[in-house]
Amino acid sequence: MTYRAPVADMLFALRHVAGLDAALAAGRHGDLALEDAEAILAEAGKVAESVIAPLNRVGDRHGTPLKDGAITTPPGWREAYRTWIDGGWNGLSADPEHGGQGLPLVLNAACTEMWNAASIAFGLCPLLTAGGIEALAQHGSDDLKTRYLDKLVSGEWTATMNLTEPQAGSDLALLRSRAEPVGDGSYRIVGAKIYITYGEHDLTDNIVHLVLARLKDAPAGTRGISLFLVPKVLPDGSRNDLRCSGIEHKLGIHGSPTCSMAFGDDGGAIGWLIGEANRGLACMFTMMNSARLNVGLQGVGIAERAYQQALGYARDRRQGKAPGSAEASPIVAHADVQRMLLTMKAFTQAARGICYLTADALDAAEGPEGQTAHDRASLLTPVAKAFSTDIANEVTSLGVQVHGGMGFVEETGAAQHMRDARILGIYEGTNGIQAIDLVARKLPLNGGATVRAQIASLRRTAEGFLKDPDPAFGRIGARLRAGIESLDRATSFQLKALASNRPEAALAGATPYLRLFGLVQGGACLGRQALAANAALKAGETDPAHAGRIALARFFADNLLTAAEGLEASILAGGHFTDDAELALAS
Amino acid sequence: MTYRAPVADMLFALRHVAGLDAALAAGRHGDLALEDAEAILAEAGKVAESVIAPLNRVGDRHGTPLKDGAITTPPGWREAYRTWIDGGWNGLSADPEHGGQGLPLVLNAACTEMWNAASIAFGLCPLLTAGGIEALAQHGSDDLKTRYLDKLVSGEWTATMNLTEPQAGSDLALLRSRAEPVGDGSYRIVGAKIYITYGEHDLTDNIVHLVLARLKDAPAGTRGISLFLVPKVLPDGSRNDLRCSGIEHKLGIHGSPTCSMAFGDDGGAIGWLIGEANRGLACMFTMMNSARLNVGLQGVGIAERAYQQALGYARDRRQGKAPGSAEASPIVAHADVQRMLLTMKAFTQAARGICYLTADALDAAEGPEGQTAHDRASLLTPVAKAFSTDIANEVTSLGVQVHGGMGFVEETGAAQHMRDARILGIYEGTNGIQAIDLVARKLPLNGGATVRAQIASLRRTAEGFLKDPDPAFGRIGARLRAGIESLDRATSFQLKALASNRPEAALAGATPYLRLFGLVQGGACLGRQALAANAALKAGETDPAHAGRIALARFFADNLLTAAEGLEASILAGGHFTDDAELALAS
Repeated sequence: MTYRAPVADMLFALRHVAGLDAALAAGRHGDLALEDAEAILAEAGKVAESVIAPLNRVGDRHGTPLKDGAITTPPGWREAYRTWIDGGWNGLSADPEHGGQGLPLVLNAACTEMWNAASIAFGLCPLLTAGGIEALAQHGSDDLKTRYLDKLVSGEWTATMNLTEPQAGSDLALLRSRAEPVGDGSYRIVGAKIYITYGEHDLTDNIVHLVLARLKDAPAGTRGISLFLVPKVLPDGSRNDLRCSGIEHKLGIHGSPTCSMAFGDDGGAIGWLIGEANRGLACMFTMMNSARLNVGLQGVGIAERAYQQALGYARDRRQGKAPGSAEASPIVAHADVQRMLLTMKAFTQAARGICYLTADALDAAEGPEGQTAHDRASLLTPVAKAFSTDIANEVTSLGVQVHGGMGFVEETGAAQHMRDARILGIYEGTNGIQAIDLVARKLPLNGGATVRAQIASLRRTAEGFLKDPDPAFGRIGARLRAGIESLDRATSFQLKALASNRPEAALAGATPYLRLFGLVQGGACLGRQALAANAALKAGETDPAHAGRIALARFFADNLLTAAEGLEASILAGGHFTDDAELALAS
Repeated sequence: MTYRAPVADMLFALRHVAGLDAALAAGRHGDLALEDAEAILAEAGKVAESVIAPLNRVGDRHGTPLKDGAITTPPGWREAYRTWIDGGWNGLSADPEHGGQGLPLVLNAACTEMWNAASIAFGLCPLLTAGGIEALAQHGSDDLKTRYLDKLVSGEWTATMNLTEPQAGSDLALLRSRAEPVGDGSYRIVGAKIYITYGEHDLTDNIVHLVLARLKDAPAGTRGISLFLVPKVLPDGSRNDLRCSGIEHKLGIHGSPTCSMAFGDDGGAIGWLIGEANRGLACMFTMMNSARLNVGLQGVGIAERAYQQALGYARDRRQGKAPGSAEASPIVAHADVQRMLLTMKAFTQAARGICYLTADALDAAEGPEGQTAHDRASLLTPVAKAFSTDIANEVTSLGVQVHGGMGFVEETGAAQHMRDARILGIYEGTNGIQAIDLVARKLPLNGGATVRAQIASLRRTAEGFLKDPDPAFGRIGARLRAGIESLDRATSFQLKALASNRPEAALAGATPYLRLFGLVQGGACLGRQALAANAALKAGETDPAHAGRIALARFFADNLLTAAEGLEASILAGGHFTDDAELALAS
């Protein structure tokens, strides 16, 4: 049940999948050296392993009781949070002007994976603060930045996102919370919000709520929503008119409070506008894009942890004789258990590659590549979020399965990973919404040029196997090419459906399309690792992990990427089912 | 959160998939008429809906506290159990000689689905009793039958299976429990068992434990295991030397106690041998085969219930505008939600078809078809168990997803279905073990003739679409044929690998092979429903459910059966991964 930060694997993915070597060589990260990156990961790994990981079970068992409007975090959480922010981890990639360390997002991505592998419930708090920092940095007035940004960057205060209302979950057009200007530049906010993660807690003295609400006379729908900063404690030290009115009893992430929030019961909570009036959704999307990648990284983290635990169990537990064995073998010797463990590991590393690649695109968007890289990040973000969290559900469920009956017993911890992971495909935009975002908004970017460029980059990876047809690769290259062609055809189908004004045909295939994209992109990530590992072996490196990376990519190609063609067929069926869905569901 | 027994769908599957019409016409079920079958299902549905379904949440919340060796079942459970056995449901298909009703297993299968849709935790108790009845009926001495069988058939007493020990889960060769003859025909049993479902409870006055143990000087391994009947209360009314020493804190099915059992702390529990000495495994397999089909039916039941709940929510909840809608639509109008709901329904009905077909084969084994039908049941049983419970995990997880954030909140009930379902792929032989059983033991039956005959029956269904190419079928026939060819080639590969003494190549593909089998067999079941529905429409029937059945089969063919080819490719990759698995897992 311990967690060992897989620093070598992460560094390898950063270097050879997410282009860290190339970025460092191009001077894109200033004077940062590879050794620095490695040292940062190693240090973060120690903190994740020793400070955060031990909180995970404690959080699950204790939960976060609410009493008289105050929430008590589980034993040890306050101290751990303090240690963590004292290490400067909260502001790792934030602007040095506000106290951040200005390090690349790819490094922060790897660290985010580690915090969340150690405990999703813990990692969720800084994840929301990070979104708040970004929204404030990009859209906040200088005055608001001065008052709030430094303390959010240091982690002395935390941030929340207040979007959801009972009638408005995925559909923000239905929001009803109201805001009225007071005349002194501040507003009075009134409304009820639900599912507010860390909406109340005792980790810090103040909580900075970012709240979506409507101004009087604002247009209906999403164009009449504004974003407000509403602190728990006002600048004069008094309590604002807001409170936690309840907490949810959830399937998982018990260590993190999920609050109902009441704003303005006594006349109105005081808040300040962030960005322009009625443009709150744009500001919120700034938060959400960052948060979506980070949720993808939560998926990678919990998948890695579930994998490690299952592997450890499979090495200890003896049941049945593997072919050729005279006595009971450790279950890791059985082909079916190997299949489960390799599936867990291959999916985890594929998802890691996609997430790190997305973070790299965000870093590159700050450099000469600019908008092109930004669009690439926009394209990849829904895949990073949804694919990584879908596989997190699958991997954590396999983790239970590897444990057999022990997996169903809570004491073992495998079931907790499965329970905790289940929220990831739902929050920050359900995975169905991610798929719609990918198909309806991201594929058409630049008339399809962004997705075509991404497919071209996948082809370059596949060509690497043609150029260097080492027998150890098996059919990696062939499977990857077949998968890319499936993705290419499916992409053409989707773009054509959108262009022909048949959105329902495109939307009906959105979920299998996202899965296909993730599988092929993930297969390419593992393929790049295999190519780099092979080159390292040929260069005389003796690390046995290299041969393991080739074997893992081959497993993925032979056993998981094989689903590509079937997904293509489903997409190309074109959503005929939407015509008679009501009939089929009626009986 | 209510459950409505889908009697019309079940009856349609019984008649047109599981051949009830044909069996009745052939007089295989005596003077039973279709109207009788329908009336029995309708009555069972009422009991499931009104007596059992309301217990489900209560069971989850209350659990089954253990105090001083006694377990209290949740409020209302004793009364419900009494009502249920008073209705004669426990002995529905048991031998009339022992008080059963002697009805066909296919009818009992449909009822078993309903009890478990209403509450898996409740349905589990009679499921174990049913296994005990079968083992005792087939292998017990007349004396044991006289003393125990009638009371098990009526449900006045319940039965348990005591297999697992801490060191012996899937591997019964490792059992250590001991038995010694006393000289009067009884034995003294000593040992510790874990994961004993309903090992202790207050539903009945006595519990009949069937316990695997070793006689002194028995051969090592599974050939030295004997089966004993060990009652909680002895014939003279005194308590036997056995007790519940602990219960598990589990992910789900909280309403059913999972006990650690201590036999013989005070010298030895008194028991009697069932069947021959050292042949306990054969007896236990009698119980397990029946139990495996029933666990498959638990999967169908929980999937059906999760589907019903998700559909109800999707019809109520309004979020977002479907294309062409002016205001927020019920989410069932969105293509992606339709895809989730149709996937849930199609998988559920496919699994139902497979389970009912298996039950029909067991019925047929009692008639002129005899051994051929018995072998067909043996072939289908691991598919019925594993495919149905795998899709139960998927369907219940989709049920959470359809609910969005509400799905992660325990109050909604969707999460409970997912937690409850998770055990089904693990107990009564993990699904990996089912896959190995299918490939290593069932495919070679009669030199492969059994599986070839089954594939031939699938082809006959596919030919139905050739003969009657109604446009409403779309590509059902074509997809089904392609799937059958994939299954055929994969079967040849597996048989060849086994014949060439390369078991590891066959075992490595066992899990995708079982999935492929289930997908194609399930697609054929839905195909048979579509053909029958089409015939009914052509015959002038106006039930709109018929068109819905065709649409559902088409959805399955276009969106789920499309995975067949990729599964074939993985199987044919032949487990190369087992060669470097340790390398790939090492890093």
